[in-house]
Amino acid sequence: MGKNKTELLSTEVRHLDIKKFDFVTLIDQMQDTAFQARNLARAAKIYEQMLTDQNCGVILCLAGSLVSAGLKKVILDLIDNNMVDAIVSTGANIVDQDFFEGLGFKHYQGSPHLDDTQLREMAIDRIYDTLIDEDQLRICDDTICQIADSLPPRAYSSREFISEMGKYLEKHGKNKDSIVLRAYQKSIPVFVPAFSDCSAGFGLVMHQVAKPDSHVSIDSVKDFRELTQLKIHAGDTGLLMIGGGVPKNFAQDVVVAAELLGAEVPMHKYAIQITVADERDGALSGSTLREACSWGKVSVVHEQMVFCEATIALPLIAGYAYGKGSWQSRQARSYSSLFTSKQRELA
Amino acid sequence: MGKNKTELLSTEVRHLDIKKFDFVTLIDQMQDTAFQARNLARAAKIYEQMLTDQNCGVILCLAGSLVSAGLKKVILDLIDNNMVDAIVSTGANIVDQDFFEGLGFKHYQGSPHLDDTQLREMAIDRIYDTLIDEDQLRICDDTICQIADSLPPRAYSSREFISEMGKYLEKHGKNKDSIVLRAYQKSIPVFVPAFSDCSAGFGLVMHQVAKPDSHVSIDSVKDFRELTQLKIHAGDTGLLMIGGGVPKNFAQDVVVAAELLGAEVPMHKYAIQITVADERDGALSGSTLREACSWGKVSVVHEQMVFCEATIALPLIAGYAYGKGSWQSRQARSYSSLFTSKQRELA
Amino acid sequence: MGKNKTELLSTEVRHLDIKKFDFVTLIDQMQDTAFQARNLARAAKIYEQMLTDQNCGVILCLAGSLVSAGLKKVILDLIDNNMVDAIVSTGANIVDQDFFEGLGFKHYQGSPHLDDTQLREMAIDRIYDTLIDEDQLRICDDTICQIADSLPPRAYSSREFISEMGKYLEKHGKNKDSIVLRAYQKSIPVFVPAFSDCSAGFGLVMHQVAKPDSHVSIDSVKDFRELTQLKIHAGDTGLLMIGGGVPKNFAQDVVVAAELLGAEVPMHKYAIQITVADERDGALSGSTLREACSWGKVSVVHEQMVFCEATIALPLIAGYAYGKGSWQSRQARSYSSLFTSKQRELA
Amino acid sequence: MGKNKTELLSTEVRHLDIKKFDFVTLIDQMQDTAFQARNLARAAKIYEQMLTDQNCGVILCLAGSLVSAGLKKVILDLIDNNMVDAIVSTGANIVDQDFFEGLGFKHYQGSPHLDDTQLREMAIDRIYDTLIDEDQLRICDDTICQIADSLPPRAYSSREFISEMGKYLEKHGKNKDSIVLRAYQKSIPVFVPAFSDCSAGFGLVMHQVAKPDSHVSIDSVKDFRELTQLKIHAGDTGLLMIGGGVPKNFAQDVVVAAELLGAEVPMHKYAIQITVADERDGALSGSTLREACSWGKVSVVHEQMVFCEATIALPLIAGYAYGKGSWQSRQARSYSSLFTSKQRELA
Repeated sequence: MGKNKTELLSTEVRHLDIKKFDFVTLIDQMQDTAFQARNLARAAKIYEQMLTDQNCGVILCLAGSLVSAGLKKVILDLIDNNMVDAIVSTGANIVDQDFFEGLGFKHYQGSPHLDDTQLREMAIDRIYDTLIDEDQLRICDDTICQIADSLPPRAYSSREFISEMGKYLEKHGKNKDSIVLRAYQKSIPVFVPAFSDCSAGFGLVMHQVAKPDSHVSIDSVKDFRELTQLKIHAGDTGLLMIGGGVPKNFAQDVVVAAELLGAEVPMHKYAIQITVADERDGALSGSTLREACSWGKVSVVHEQMVFCEATIALPLIAGYAYGKGSWQSRQARSYSSLFTSKQRELA
Repeated sequence: MGKNKTELLSTEVRHLDIKKFDFVTLIDQMQDTAFQARNLARAAKIYEQMLTDQNCGVILCLAGSLVSAGLKKVILDLIDNNMVDAIVSTGANIVDQDFFEGLGFKHYQGSPHLDDTQLREMAIDRIYDTLIDEDQLRICDDTICQIADSLPPRAYSSREFISEMGKYLEKHGKNKDSIVLRAYQKSIPVFVPAFSDCSAGFGLVMHQVAKPDSHVSIDSVKDFRELTQLKIHAGDTGLLMIGGGVPKNFAQDVVVAAELLGAEVPMHKYAIQITVADERDGALSGSTLREACSWGKVSVVHEQMVFCEATIALPLIAGYAYGKGSWQSRQARSYSSLFTSKQRELA
Repeated sequence: MGKNKTELLSTEVRHLDIKKFDFVTLIDQMQDTAFQARNLARAAKIYEQMLTDQNCGVILCLAGSLVSAGLKKVILDLIDNNMVDAIVSTGANIVDQDFFEGLGFKHYQGSPHLDDTQLREMAIDRIYDTLIDEDQLRICDDTICQIADSLPPRAYSSREFISEMGKYLEKHGKNKDSIVLRAYQKSIPVFVPAFSDCSAGFGLVMHQVAKPDSHVSIDSVKDFRELTQLKIHAGDTGLLMIGGGVPKNFAQDVVVAAELLGAEVPMHKYAIQITVADERDGALSGSTLREACSWGKVSVVHEQMVFCEATIALPLIAGYAYGKGSWQSRQARSYSSLFTSKQRELA
Repeated sequence: MGKNKTELLSTEVRHLDIKKFDFVTLIDQMQDTAFQARNLARAAKIYEQMLTDQNCGVILCLAGSLVSAGLKKVILDLIDNNMVDAIVSTGANIVDQDFFEGLGFKHYQGSPHLDDTQLREMAIDRIYDTLIDEDQLRICDDTICQIADSLPPRAYSSREFISEMGKYLEKHGKNKDSIVLRAYQKSIPVFVPAFSDCSAGFGLVMHQVAKPDSHVSIDSVKDFRELTQLKIHAGDTGLLMIGGGVPKNFAQDVVVAAELLGAEVPMHKYAIQITVADERDGALSGSTLREACSWGKVSVVHEQMVFCEATIALPLIAGYAYGKGSWQSRQARSYSSLFTSKQRELA
């Protein structure tokens, strides 16, 4: 490669801004074509329907490396403009990437053809064509440990802990463009059901090892309980899913969980998923939304899979919905408040 | 479809038995061909190397719907014959599918072309071409709830809870061919880092809602702590990964976690992954094992991706290693004992 | 389905117009993100480089069902604005879809979930989510037969025959938006190396069976000879490839063919490919452009694969190059004239 | 890389021998599992049905780099044991790979991670993880040119020319394990509808340029005519398709072509395809066999897609059919004789 660490980490990933284009005309035209362009247009229009449906809460599911890939501002625009009411994510997006950037760190443009053994020696971590300074990631781990150290020892949902991370960034953050921060400020709950499977896990392991007898623990059942409570409260819901994995499964499952608790809730009324996976391996990530209907999770009336990589598809879908402007008359749900005032009722 | 529930649920999925074939000759021949056959042969031989390496602990990672797809007996043969020392899995495999079968229930052969709305009305759940009786799945959820009800309220790792599930099956199970049961009996720890993201979540939510003040919680940090402890104890390790997702990430991450705790541990010395995902979307599931090297998780010396669906690839790889017979002189690690005797030392 | 043929064939596919949108800002922003958005931006910029390079002839390769999918106008804009100098395509795009539309027929929006047995009974042909009136396709076959009947019997290259199809449309066509027509009028040669593998094959088989002793034949060697001649004449060349298959292979191969004829020609200087295929099966369609370098066909300096379905990716790439406007000062190559005046020199 | 050409070309690809393994038990077990293992088993059984159906002619379609990947002996076993009656292929398999090996040359094991620029300098061509000596490939091109030089100048179908290649190998070949040779000897016609799109193209271009006024040409319409004639003669037919591309389309199309010529022929009664492509891009290679039914080409009663790379799937499917042994009572069709004796009747 012939480049040193400073040279390799010189070109930042910049976050795409959907507010600078007119995606409405483009999507309207794609609607009349075929294949994935038509699927993408159909998905964009279903998302727009979710936003115009006054009774519908919107749950955004995030899997894959979206924040490091330059999609953070897209997600921030959804948050800022009342286009999303709850978030279910992998830990990588929320902690390693978003909280990490909130601490003032950056992601850098690289190449999939770099020599990984040499990167290892330079303490540079690679995600496909994106590079991270591993030393900075260790600071992110440590910060999680510090936050845990500062909290009363008990079982937390990931949502509660992420809320604390938002509070931390409000005081100590160096970059206000953070999903964790902005969601905290707008009372949008963020769930990471596999919370220890990321930088948060490193920080919390250090915390628990240092405090063996009394420490913060993360109860993923509590997450499930809270998201179910949210579904019961919300009634009609729509899913905007980027990638599959745990967030997709978790968010779909709450319909069944609510039923088990005796609540009569509708299936997710709207559901769209952006993915490159397909159904052939029987795994959840590529399973069709029609299959989810057999499980009683998703209605088949307004569902659409879009087989396209997210860095291309999400800006177009989100940009269309932004451009249509119906978010302007949409109310913020502030679902986080559910878990302070009403938590005791259900729990 | 024109079939009723009994007709649709009439042909069982049966579990493939690798002990009935000579896969050694086949793999030896595939070794000299090309493309995925050669990759598969190379992976099989790396797995065999793990087993002959006396100092290497083998971690099996399971993602996707493997048990319902007829691969349970393959995994049981690995357990029974000291070919695997720890398991990291999605909840679906361990609870919804394996524990479910341990309770005496079955999976059924269906088709991806069935009408999901009609399946929903009959309470039949579909996974690609496989069918499940939803009423039986509710019994599985309830059983998890009962197990939780019977335990002292505190924070458990998923490993601890799954161990209790093994104990339950030993007493009340109706099918001895169970990964949960057999791993329990052989002291092989089973981790499910996103434990509430499956039938276990349903049972545990019911448990917690019924016992709001004092209940079992699942601390995923404790899982991470325990698996890290296992890595520190094991020294050299090899990963046999089916699919990607949380199990892949979680198992790879323990190398870094061990370093953060001050332990000097080697990267995973061997790593193979069976998947149909690819690297193009930057997501973890399809990320190359070389990329994992940049993160200091996996050595590039003995690594191999196999791009093939698991129902075809796993029997060939496992069957080859079984056929070679080096497991006959391999010692059981009984890693579960680490967490009873030595837990206090680290924790 | 419950719909009759008229109802099923009621909503036309409409062709997307790249001139209505500012793709330049979008691509410039995608350039600084990651994954396929960055690959797409890089490809768009390589295409723009081809157009600003005064010495570079641009060869467009078309595989997959692009015209029926609503991408015809994109391709027409490339033709009209001197953004492409030669075309190598599958027969489906040129005959079944473009010539078919030139005759006044349309493609219709459908769904991948329709019942194919019922479609068969109604004589409706399906391509994923697009529908075709089979009776109209038979008229297309017949027209090819009539054109063949009108020509002097001898061996033709596909280019020669397609040129005759352009002449036919000029006189008898009912829709001036046709690649075959417009390429004919602008002296842009169109090659279909597997010419009988489409509606043209049906028409020509009828022609030959009716005239067993003296008829038109299609010599694919002549195609290869002509495209090689074009490469020798053009010198520097760039490939804009949509999909893989025969067009990709054929266009790459001319570099080697030229060398075998004793001409010193450079490898293709620029090459981009839009595809969803990957390299794992060792097939040509997904083979990397770096692999093509080992064969001496493509330079690795300016090459980019974009892993995205073409209905989404092509408008963005073509729209960027259109928006940059360097085509305004670019000269038409009129390569078709090579084969009238200079043919004898080489042949 | 640090290796020279001799070192890089030192380990031969060896051809897998299906006769050494009991695939019947394996496939019977896969039949009761799920996902692609069950699809593969179903495909194997459909192929076996084709062979037991006394009235069914079997057409083998070959796309992708199968011969260089070590699958040649599998195909030879199908030929030798009356398990295939006609072949439709890409040129790469038949000329660059099989005829090439017939001349005594070999393919070598390499790696997808080699440096293509260095390979280019050493005149080594790469196909994923397989290497070819480019100097030997030039000899293959030249041999095609010599064969063309020796033939009376006229329009040939690819089948006729490939038959001449078989004759050549019978006299001058250095390796009797050749599809071209063995098919010639068994009167099994081999069609390559895009014949100039391979090493044959190079040789024939040299031939035509050297003999501008009177030369061999390859009429792909004649191929289509002949294959249609074969279909009319055969009546019931089954397709065993490896990969997609031109061979898949061409072989499917003959049903329609036969109808256009006034013959009443059944759709292909059986059809199986091994591929890693999927339907999402609307291209032919991954289009479902159900979609082909809407075109009137393939019956949906006995059809199966297998989503698996061919080096793994083909040995299992072919090995199962071989192991079942019904080929022992199957008659050779010797379809090549159709084109000598009966050609005039239709043409």
